[in-house]
Amino acid sequence: MRLDHNGLEVLDRDECLRLLGGATIGRVGVSSGALPRVLPVNFRLDGERVLIRTGRGTKLDAATANAVVAFEVDEIDPVDQTGWSVLITGVAREVTDPDELAAVRAQPLARWAPHGPDDRIMAISTELVDGRRILGDRVGVAPA
Amino acid sequence: MRLDHNGLEVLDRDECLRLLGGATIGRVGVSSGALPRVLPVNFRLDGERVLIRTGRGTKLDAATANAVVAFEVDEIDPVDQTGWSVLITGVAREVTDPDELAAVRAQPLARWAPHGPDDRIMAISTELVDGRRILGDRVGVAPA
Repeated sequence: MRLDHNGLEVLDRDECLRLLGGATIGRVGVSSGALPRVLPVNFRLDGERVLIRTGRGTKLDAATANAVVAFEVDEIDPVDQTGWSVLITGVAREVTDPDELAAVRAQPLARWAPHGPDDRIMAISTELVDGRRILGDRVGVAPA
Repeated sequence: MRLDHNGLEVLDRDECLRLLGGATIGRVGVSSGALPRVLPVNFRLDGERVLIRTGRGTKLDAATANAVVAFEVDEIDPVDQTGWSVLITGVAREVTDPDELAAVRAQPLARWAPHGPDDRIMAISTELVDGRRILGDRVGVAPA
């Protein structure tokens, strides 16, 4: 087990992808109008890419098209403070090939908002995958 | 009840702050080395500002000092897909005044990593607060 300098276990790429495969909600980090934004999304891991749905013309849509984005997923127990987090950095591209789109749409992928404009599917590549596990011996702030 | 154009209920500032007051884990979105990053953190709402702990010299520390950051909190039921999300955009500044620091440290604020460099407390202002509630009539992707 490898620890980083903050005492968190470093997860390898395979373990990160395995954890993502069991999760359905993540957060996309983008720059939008020169400001950072973090937007919750439903997602599905498809091989080694992350698929999300956006509404055409939405802020998420505008901010992700052909952009480098951050994609974060975590599962933390707020009581015992154990869990994991995975951060992906990759390029988001729309899935436009009709055959590929048909294959993607044949599998469930929830939409974040119930209504809104026609959706499109964005695929986030996973060039950079960074994961940590929190082992549960965390320290609170002591009174000064 | 006000809905946005995606069919999500728009939450007012008071409701957003009330929801933040009951949560302990959020995600900070920053730009770091020209790349967007999203980092999970423990936090505490203190009046109208968000307090987080960082380790001096860490990526979170470097990326948040006097920077405009995004801060996102959500609580989503992955089964029935109901819940809420709040996005804050504000400036992160270190709390350095000794009296203020003593007052802040007298209240619990968990640290994300169990070990690591000396910590400091960052306060994120809440100039911009944006919240949505998801009402649970969400649509999955139908087979094409």
